[in-house]
Amino acid sequence: MIEHKHLVQFYETDMMGIVHHSNYLRFFEEARVHWAHVKGLIDYQKKESASHIAVLETHVRHFKPAYFGDLLKIQVQARLDGVRMTFQYKMFGRNDDVIATCQTRHAPMSLDLKPIKIAKDFKQVFEREKWIETWL
Amino acid sequence: MIEHKHLVQFYETDMMGIVHHSNYLRFFEEARVHWAHVKGLIDYQKKESASHIAVLETHVRHFKPAYFGDLLKIQVQARLDGVRMTFQYKMFGRNDDVIATCQTRHAPMSLDLKPIKIAKDFKQVFEREKWIETWL
Amino acid sequence: MIEHKHLVQFYETDMMGIVHHSNYLRFFEEARVHWAHVKGLIDYQKKESASHIAVLETHVRHFKPAYFGDLLKIQVQARLDGVRMTFQYKMFGRNDDVIATCQTRHAPMSLDLKPIKIAKDFKQVFEREKWIETWL
Amino acid sequence: MIEHKHLVQFYETDMMGIVHHSNYLRFFEEARVHWAHVKGLIDYQKKESASHIAVLETHVRHFKPAYFGDLLKIQVQARLDGVRMTFQYKMFGRNDDVIATCQTRHAPMSLDLKPIKIAKDFKQVFEREKWIETWL
Repeated sequence: MIEHKHLVQFYETDMMGIVHHSNYLRFFEEARVHWAHVKGLIDYQKKESASHIAVLETHVRHFKPAYFGDLLKIQVQARLDGVRMTFQYKMFGRNDDVIATCQTRHAPMSLDLKPIKIAKDFKQVFEREKWIETWL
Repeated sequence: MIEHKHLVQFYETDMMGIVHHSNYLRFFEEARVHWAHVKGLIDYQKKESASHIAVLETHVRHFKPAYFGDLLKIQVQARLDGVRMTFQYKMFGRNDDVIATCQTRHAPMSLDLKPIKIAKDFKQVFEREKWIETWL
Repeated sequence: MIEHKHLVQFYETDMMGIVHHSNYLRFFEEARVHWAHVKGLIDYQKKESASHIAVLETHVRHFKPAYFGDLLKIQVQARLDGVRMTFQYKMFGRNDDVIATCQTRHAPMSLDLKPIKIAKDFKQVFEREKWIETWL
Repeated sequence: MIEHKHLVQFYETDMMGIVHHSNYLRFFEEARVHWAHVKGLIDYQKKESASHIAVLETHVRHFKPAYFGDLLKIQVQARLDGVRMTFQYKMFGRNDDVIATCQTRHAPMSLDLKPIKIAKDFKQVFEREKWIETWL
């Protein structure tokens, strides 16, 4: 299982003194890209490889806030649901508390943003993934 | 019903040429703040009035992309679920298509981020709101 | 002279309780795009028209902070410096105080990000602009 | 000299396919905070320690774009100019090219955003810094 780390930056806080909730989707994207990179599905040198996976749905639950300077840890799991790719995320904050969970659903797109079939290499990677329990 | 408008800015796009999905939570926040302002629940001059409503959950469905220069329209509805505040949003893009729907759940917090009871004026406003159908 | 308005959003604040300085470049971009749209240089329907002006330099001076809910006003002026486009901006905040000034320099780029000559219609628009005094 | 690293994220790109220029100020802030942390001037556990340094001025020059997946390297230097703190930054992108340089100026503020004298420990750290040449 991939564990992604993110150090909370000053510019990610808001006037409540905590990380603004919109940034969580950015951190989960980081974790998803990290996962895809480790699995060999993203080649940073090829513009197309990463950029054409559409986001169909995001669902985040927040349990505790995150603060400037926190080193967040994000676990990622992935599975195929027919033609959709589903990811789930568990975010750990201070004292290793689970501070947020998330699910996102995605579909591959052509360069002109039409839905296409999932590529063979993607499919093979997803089929080797383990999704033991649902976190959200 | 409040309808909030947002003109998509260049800096809100990503390398797919569309609005990055994390920005949708920002647009829905704009709509929620707009709603609260119209209802008299936010006084921009008082720092505390707006800032201490925690985000407990966000759930977004994306149907079509949004593009640079699009004038998005966002409808907002609100209701109380016990001690939680729930908002739903319907976003219209090009050709007045519904391009996204969303639900968010919130709870009032004290200045040191502890959960507190919902204020009387908030409660009264929510009780007058209509929530006819669920959009998500 | 174009005057652009921006209502400060909650998500644009940071833990100091004020607008994060990186957002000023976004507000100045909004004003620049607004200017280009009014001058007929941006057609939102054509992806290429707006997107291929490179940013060469930005220079911002901050005098006072901006707060959540402030309705910022931004004045814009433009001029050609040979093959470069220069913009200057004056930002007004609470009590109509000048809270920031800025200069940005730009150059037109081809779709593959190579520098190209400035288009004739751009040139004509810039030549009609007035730049009376320097604000920065 | 501190060298800060930043891996360019997908959400930091724009529809030109490159990193949006407003994000550079965020990366330079990361580098500045990194510097302050290494120097013992920021304690992430104390909210006040980092948050009350005002940004007076930012000046960025862009030479080449940055792309999704690039591992940017940012060198930082600092010096005192009377009551102001000045930082300069040199950013390296693909092929170790210098892709941007920057200067920012700052002043310490009280919790209610009034200018105050620079703290003794800050002063001592700055006086030990070396600023050999000017990069901007």
